[in-house]
Amino acid sequence: MDRLINIAAPPLDTEEARARREADAPHSPVASFPGETLRLDAGLVLHDLQIAYQTYGEPNAARTNAILVCHALTGDQHVANVNPVTGKPGWWETLVGPGKPIDTERFYVICANVLGGCMGTTGPSSTNPQTGRPYGLDMPLVTIRDMVNAQAMLLDHLGIERLLCVAGGSMGGMQVLQWVASYPERVVSALPIATAARHSAQNIAFHEVGRQAVMADPDWHGGHYLQFGVTPHRGLAVARMAAHITYMSDQALHRKFGRRLQDRALPTFGFDADFQVESYLRHQGESFVQRFDPNSYLYVTRAMDYFDLAAEYDGVLANAFRGSKTRFCVVSFTSDWLFPTQDSRAIVHALNASGAPVSFAEIESDKGHDAFLLDEPELSDITRGFLDSAAKTAGLPVARDR
Amino acid sequence: MDRLINIAAPPLDTEEARARREADAPHSPVASFPGETLRLDAGLVLHDLQIAYQTYGEPNAARTNAILVCHALTGDQHVANVNPVTGKPGWWETLVGPGKPIDTERFYVICANVLGGCMGTTGPSSTNPQTGRPYGLDMPLVTIRDMVNAQAMLLDHLGIERLLCVAGGSMGGMQVLQWVASYPERVVSALPIATAARHSAQNIAFHEVGRQAVMADPDWHGGHYLQFGVTPHRGLAVARMAAHITYMSDQALHRKFGRRLQDRALPTFGFDADFQVESYLRHQGESFVQRFDPNSYLYVTRAMDYFDLAAEYDGVLANAFRGSKTRFCVVSFTSDWLFPTQDSRAIVHALNASGAPVSFAEIESDKGHDAFLLDEPELSDITRGFLDSAAKTAGLPVARDR
Repeated sequence: MDRLINIAAPPLDTEEARARREADAPHSPVASFPGETLRLDAGLVLHDLQIAYQTYGEPNAARTNAILVCHALTGDQHVANVNPVTGKPGWWETLVGPGKPIDTERFYVICANVLGGCMGTTGPSSTNPQTGRPYGLDMPLVTIRDMVNAQAMLLDHLGIERLLCVAGGSMGGMQVLQWVASYPERVVSALPIATAARHSAQNIAFHEVGRQAVMADPDWHGGHYLQFGVTPHRGLAVARMAAHITYMSDQALHRKFGRRLQDRALPTFGFDADFQVESYLRHQGESFVQRFDPNSYLYVTRAMDYFDLAAEYDGVLANAFRGSKTRFCVVSFTSDWLFPTQDSRAIVHALNASGAPVSFAEIESDKGHDAFLLDEPELSDITRGFLDSAAKTAGLPVARDR
Repeated sequence: MDRLINIAAPPLDTEEARARREADAPHSPVASFPGETLRLDAGLVLHDLQIAYQTYGEPNAARTNAILVCHALTGDQHVANVNPVTGKPGWWETLVGPGKPIDTERFYVICANVLGGCMGTTGPSSTNPQTGRPYGLDMPLVTIRDMVNAQAMLLDHLGIERLLCVAGGSMGGMQVLQWVASYPERVVSALPIATAARHSAQNIAFHEVGRQAVMADPDWHGGHYLQFGVTPHRGLAVARMAAHITYMSDQALHRKFGRRLQDRALPTFGFDADFQVESYLRHQGESFVQRFDPNSYLYVTRAMDYFDLAAEYDGVLANAFRGSKTRFCVVSFTSDWLFPTQDSRAIVHALNASGAPVSFAEIESDKGHDAFLLDEPELSDITRGFLDSAAKTAGLPVARDR
């Protein structure tokens, strides 16, 4: 925010950024599955699957204390450790860590980079074993269900049969819902936050704008930019800027920036970042392209677009949860206009109809969709209470008084 | 909507489109002001101003029946005639025409292409008289007040001293407010629709994304693309797509498109326009670049960003209207999230504080910001009633029964 960044200016050093990302990705353990295949919803089969992940805490002797955290669109496996690419804290350190609501002193916490991602799990920037070159658009499209199936393979690899909880916000919440639908017997409790059982027309529209921004960049080269030694960083930055607006509320933008000018008293009557909100957005765009692969952005947004859990169950969402014994806690935020409370209510209504035990909280916040990533005391309290209760039901030792 | 358009595909024929636009622009009368200058808020002076405009109906003998219509960001002077560039009906034929609420059998209706525009009024694609080449970014930035000052010159040119009404939606509504502030004695009544007295942080943010999309297109060439025989059509299309989402409501997008697929039963598992909403947006982007100049898009969005009427009056909006005898009718739409009702209420509160006569209507509609351009019977009724009353006050003959 203290710098003016013009994404139309000379290219950013994204080659270096990618090299750093690739060098750093091995910081995470990577599970390989030689000889196994993953059958995708697209009808194709993925060979040589690799899943990069992080774990925190230790499994107990009965292996009943595992919690799977699912990350959102541009998240990664670095939930609660310094991110090796950005040098910033893990993306959910507000909730995950020793003594935190998702307490790594009690629970064995697992998070994997999603299928289609760019932090070590197989995605479009991975090497296609059939050609020896990066997949690019030859990588088959993946769905939220494919992501969950890959995570299930990882759990098998780690020797975790049942999850005490699967938790996540936004696209992470979609995975939570899919987990219960696909593997009801493996999930004791589920915490979907700021999410929806299907992506709305407006959200598909915003994703399409982002994809078109990437694909309109001549450096995209039909998805094969890695072979040309370039990256469509300008298009990706525009995509990130547009998306970032949707993560915040009008009120949050007003409170943070209003119409305040950047480092000056009067407008410049030009196209530099006159307003603080412009400078902030440019910075968001610029820093994002240093850490994210443009093709992964296409794949993962597409997976969200395709998500419509009811469609797998004759259009009746309740059928997705029929017979499940999983306990649910559904959370939304009042100012989230990307995944508004009505989306969470639809999930709750379906769970009610299926007879599943569910609690629901709409948290008062003016921080928009981003609230699930921020320090929201009510979210912390709800998460702690829900996990305490789930742990008690599962026969885990009670939490120490804090 | 019936075609798949991929803006990442080979360039559209925008050269031809521009030639057509330039050939057609003279369809409108153009007012020139030889020897006169327009002093801009940016502190610079504009020479050889040209204003392209349309008129409908005839002035009465006393010249008391003139109504100025102000167009929005991507509108133009073709309010109520077939647009020579698009071949489509005028943009406000729902409200303007013979027997319509803004009745061209009673009123003399004027609309000018805004300063900075690309339909014949001086803008960045106009020839810079000092160089003989298109201005590009050498055109000084313009403000809403500059646009209004240029319109005032046009009215002088047309021999219209006072306006029975000045009316417009969105950026048109900003001009309406500025008209009363700058020329209170020239405006009998004012009809600002779906607008605000200042542009919000969120709206500045969306505009900045659009500008960055244009400026990130290598074909933009620092604004001098005309000299290179190209146009940054890909960037402009992305800008339009992002903006278009903000013109509609979530409900309208859901009602129009939902998650329906485009001409097929199953998803393609690719990046073509699978969903109807994607195809629609691509079409919006593609058709826009055929009719609009990318630099004009930068200039006119910037004018909106800078609009903060209270700032000219010690931060007190009511002072902008103090002493004015203009009668106001302020209109908003329930589902407009770009210019929400609270923005209109702020205008009404200021008018109340200034003692100006004002009526206010929030119209129930699920069509979002676009509602002001669509067939909204309540808007028609309100407009007809308000103008009837203004005409009566001004001593015009009563309207015939219809």
